[in-house]
Amino acid sequence: MSENPIELERVLRTDLSPDEASRVSELLTNTRIQDVIRLVERMPAAKAGVLFRLLSQDRALTVFEALDARHQADLIGALHDEDVLRYFDEMDPDDRVSLLDEVPAEVADELLRTLEKSERDITGIVLGYPRGSVGRRMSPEILVLYQDMTVGDALAILKRRASEIETIYTLPIVNRERKLTGICSFRDLYTADPHQHLSDIMAEAVSARANDAAESTARWLLTLDHLAMPVTDETGRLVGLLTFDDAHEIVEEADTEDAARGGGHEPLQQPYLSTPLAKVVRSRIVWLLVLALSAIFTVQVLDSFEDTLATAVVLALFIPLLTGTAGNTGNQAATTVTRALALGDVRKSDVFRVLWREMRVGFFLGTLLGTLGFGLASLVYSTQVGMVIGFTLVAVCTMAASIGGIMPIIAKAIGADPAVFSNPFISTFSDATGLIIYFMIAKAILGI
Amino acid sequence: MSENPIELERVLRTDLSPDEASRVSELLTNTRIQDVIRLVERMPAAKAGVLFRLLSQDRALTVFEALDARHQADLIGALHDEDVLRYFDEMDPDDRVSLLDEVPAEVADELLRTLEKSERDITGIVLGYPRGSVGRRMSPEILVLYQDMTVGDALAILKRRASEIETIYTLPIVNRERKLTGICSFRDLYTADPHQHLSDIMAEAVSARANDAAESTARWLLTLDHLAMPVTDETGRLVGLLTFDDAHEIVEEADTEDAARGGGHEPLQQPYLSTPLAKVVRSRIVWLLVLALSAIFTVQVLDSFEDTLATAVVLALFIPLLTGTAGNTGNQAATTVTRALALGDVRKSDVFRVLWREMRVGFFLGTLLGTLGFGLASLVYSTQVGMVIGFTLVAVCTMAASIGGIMPIIAKAIGADPAVFSNPFISTFSDATGLIIYFMIAKAILGI
Repeated sequence: MSENPIELERVLRTDLSPDEASRVSELLTNTRIQDVIRLVERMPAAKAGVLFRLLSQDRALTVFEALDARHQADLIGALHDEDVLRYFDEMDPDDRVSLLDEVPAEVADELLRTLEKSERDITGIVLGYPRGSVGRRMSPEILVLYQDMTVGDALAILKRRASEIETIYTLPIVNRERKLTGICSFRDLYTADPHQHLSDIMAEAVSARANDAAESTARWLLTLDHLAMPVTDETGRLVGLLTFDDAHEIVEEADTEDAARGGGHEPLQQPYLSTPLAKVVRSRIVWLLVLALSAIFTVQVLDSFEDTLATAVVLALFIPLLTGTAGNTGNQAATTVTRALALGDVRKSDVFRVLWREMRVGFFLGTLLGTLGFGLASLVYSTQVGMVIGFTLVAVCTMAASIGGIMPIIAKAIGADPAVFSNPFISTFSDATGLIIYFMIAKAILGI
Repeated sequence: MSENPIELERVLRTDLSPDEASRVSELLTNTRIQDVIRLVERMPAAKAGVLFRLLSQDRALTVFEALDARHQADLIGALHDEDVLRYFDEMDPDDRVSLLDEVPAEVADELLRTLEKSERDITGIVLGYPRGSVGRRMSPEILVLYQDMTVGDALAILKRRASEIETIYTLPIVNRERKLTGICSFRDLYTADPHQHLSDIMAEAVSARANDAAESTARWLLTLDHLAMPVTDETGRLVGLLTFDDAHEIVEEADTEDAARGGGHEPLQQPYLSTPLAKVVRSRIVWLLVLALSAIFTVQVLDSFEDTLATAVVLALFIPLLTGTAGNTGNQAATTVTRALALGDVRKSDVFRVLWREMRVGFFLGTLLGTLGFGLASLVYSTQVGMVIGFTLVAVCTMAASIGGIMPIIAKAIGADPAVFSNPFISTFSDATGLIIYFMIAKAILGI
């Protein structure tokens, strides 16, 4: 990376004098576009607004288009109205809809009103599909090629209209009722005999329905290494195209969401450093409260064993070790299964296969740790304490791995996000259950 | 999804009689290719081997190519040698190298020996770059277009050679020393005046060096929505092309690795259900042992406060609640920053900005939880206990968020994977530190 972005970032931290503004403007002209994007991603909205005014119109548009929708929405207040309208007008319909989802309803209405009728209509198509569906993320601007056209005709149309269309490399082919009948790559079209009909050269299309879930469709598109996938309505008519870059964006958002929820908070949906502090707090506080309140259950469990604890204070020493190990074992299983569910490797119907696998894995891990724990605790404390620790580890590891493995599947089955039921909830749950197991085993072995 | 894959999966669970084999073969022919891939991904290698023998040659190759390299390596033993050689011969050089990385050295040598010289040479180019570099994942088979060619000439070359080349939509352009001077999309080439020179229509190329890190380059390519990025050597000569589908694969592997390590285990690198149980155990046991051994530190901390505990057993009741909350707060910060580092939103030099943000966030969260904790514990136990809990929550949340925020950055600075130092280690670390804070505050307030 060149020096420009670093110098720019330093200068932009303070308020700009008119003199510095021209210096920044000059620096900006010589900074690579990807570095300018990075710079904006790392700035609070107010500062970024200043920077936008110093960029050329073209570059400003490119930068704006590269930002997350949530970030774009934050920026709107810091930009000149006419700039916002221009960006909005130039955006692809699917990106436009993502932005509309993030702004207040009255702003959305106002923005939509400024569009030309044809653009508003095409945006309306995308807006008509539910959030999280393929239709909401597809490009509705497509070139319609009929199967009874010749290759030569299709190439001529492409040459004329190539610049208006988002992607020309994947070409869906339809019959006269506009129903999808096949697909053809620009490469195949280009190298085919111009007199052939499209129906002769087209291949079977892997397509999606507009109402399908966006995430799983996007993962399929990327697994199959396709550049784009045709999207049809329920009757098989072609309505759009989901492109690989939109697919990647969908997958990245889903992975960021999973990473966040696995860590016990909501995703920020915009770059960390440009997120206002209050939003960071808001993304965490609800989770933290819910988890802390569930942890009160552990206080109650321990409260009910207070006499046992008072008789053998030594038992208290192992509480964090045991709950920690149970939590770790549960997390391991939960993250594995959550990721496998996200990637489509595991389905809801696999719940018993997963349970059986995780029980065995947990038992094996527990036996290993338990043997070690027995040895160490016997040496330092007593054989009886060693036995308590050993047996507890076997039991809690088996329990935690099993619960950790099936919780994400259960979450999915009841329509919740598996990541929500993964790490932090497993920890809290296995803390309480683990403590009960611990004190039951202790009471039995120590006879108290 | 049709019924075929489900019926197939049921039939394949048992050993096949010759009669069933022909039935499966028929079912397979009518199953969509993506469903066959899913099926193989969910099967142990031995079973999948049987299935491969029932697929047509073409479909078998497509399925094999769609699998992870680790999974392919597992399958090699279950397939006929001649099939393996045929798949290996047909693979793209970069995928071939990924597979070679996963098989034992003697198998790799044997496989390489079977290749034709030209194929072996081109595979050798990719093999020459270090693991984790762009060079290791690029396509070395590229079309070389010189800037002094005309558009018409370039189109003619493309028409002739389109079928041999992995991607023809992104066209890097070089000078007579083969140094990259620009880039042109097939779309622009196709719509340009045939008499122009490529130097007139080419755009500035965003390129990568072969020795650059694969993950960050791949993320850039996908952020910029490019189909491919030219790759050059240190002197600027064109050596290959990194395509969007390889970029996506790189990013997905990295995200899976982060998800696994954030959950305290190593990634399986192949679908969960097809992974042998022993491999699942191996991916977790080292982490679990290391974490359990670090947790012994918490036993020591509590041991040193045993007198305090014996005097006020009530303190033991809150141990899981406090360590759990500290762990959750730390995890929240750690996962946010780990993801931001992976996406490039946060850099090493931001360590103090992150620390300052997280200290404030942690303090705010701690104050909120602390007030609540004070209220509840005062009601149920005593005001003194309430004060201990309240102050401890403020202190541990501030501490845990700060540590959680900077640990991933420190990990990155010392060249470790930030995800390794995220969730589970933060939990163990904040457990021990939190306990010390807790008992110090308790001793001060309760005067014991």
